[in-house]
Amino acid sequence: MKKSLGPQTLAFPLPAYLVGTYDTDNRPNIMTAAWGGILASTPPCLGVSVQPPRWSHAAILKNQAFTVSFPSSKLAVEVDYAGIVSGKKFDKFKGASLTPVKSDLVNAPYVAECPVVAECRLYKTLELGSHTLFVGEILDIKADEGLELDGSALDIEKVDPLIFNRGGEYHRVGTGVGKAFSIGKSLIK
Amino acid sequence: MKKSLGPQTLAFPLPAYLVGTYDTDNRPNIMTAAWGGILASTPPCLGVSVQPPRWSHAAILKNQAFTVSFPSSKLAVEVDYAGIVSGKKFDKFKGASLTPVKSDLVNAPYVAECPVVAECRLYKTLELGSHTLFVGEILDIKADEGLELDGSALDIEKVDPLIFNRGGEYHRVGTGVGKAFSIGKSLIK
Repeated sequence: MKKSLGPQTLAFPLPAYLVGTYDTDNRPNIMTAAWGGILASTPPCLGVSVQPPRWSHAAILKNQAFTVSFPSSKLAVEVDYAGIVSGKKFDKFKGASLTPVKSDLVNAPYVAECPVVAECRLYKTLELGSHTLFVGEILDIKADEGLELDGSALDIEKVDPLIFNRGGEYHRVGTGVGKAFSIGKSLIK
Repeated sequence: MKKSLGPQTLAFPLPAYLVGTYDTDNRPNIMTAAWGGILASTPPCLGVSVQPPRWSHAAILKNQAFTVSFPSSKLAVEVDYAGIVSGKKFDKFKGASLTPVKSDLVNAPYVAECPVVAECRLYKTLELGSHTLFVGEILDIKADEGLELDGSALDIEKVDPLIFNRGGEYHRVGTGVGKAFSIGKSLIK
């Protein structure tokens, strides 16, 4: 018997994305976002939701582009900082000692210190009450060398991504519990 | 210097949601989904993307509702199974020995064995090429007893959610690396 917690924004796991933009003064900025995810395969779509008053909202609309940098767990302090302060008042790249790299595909910067990044052109938007969902078409994924699991897939333990828990702590990824598209075959009868 | 991997559907971390519906014959069905996430705060929105040919696509449209059950890592085999076979041919609840519970708020079943579930009415849809994004308004979160971290937030280590890595393994959540909305304050100057 489960108990009711009411209508809350809970899901497991939640990401801690660093959304990169050039702001309205063309300065590189990042915003921490836990609302978003992969939303389609063709075209490859990555969505992030941003409240209209946020500094990054106007920046995404102006440039019709954004990046998402996937931080490793060792960047937890920097990620938390980028979620607490506004780019309107703070140079967050400088404050967090992070390095902006201009995408060669869209007008947006990514975070050099993150192991994997996605460069997105704005594909569609959807108004969802408090937030605007910005759906980006992933034009490229860029990753540090040496993160491969095999020929193509990236090893999540090497990427060591940060996981957000609403109201609680950031966490790392833990142990593996079985191969996807494989372990379930044992139940097919 | 990062290397280009091309346009891929990569993000970290990815979820392994169990999307619950009553199908067109009113049988309970589940579908494993890694494409989705929380997309707004007010109303609380949880989105899942489904390909139009999938059995769950028509079911969501018919009922204007779905649930998302967040599986713990011990359900990895069942989750993988529900992502491999179609509800058109298989009774996946039976095949995975899982228990459907009818939501008291929407016409959709959730998975009793999952520690946390979200009950959603269909709020908006967005066509994104290969997938339809179904944005649900979360009407309630229901959770097993004893998962609280403090008064309200759920302890992610007790929930023990499954994490999906595209092309690789399922993983558990690992160790904590700092308190959210707190550890970043050290960088504010």
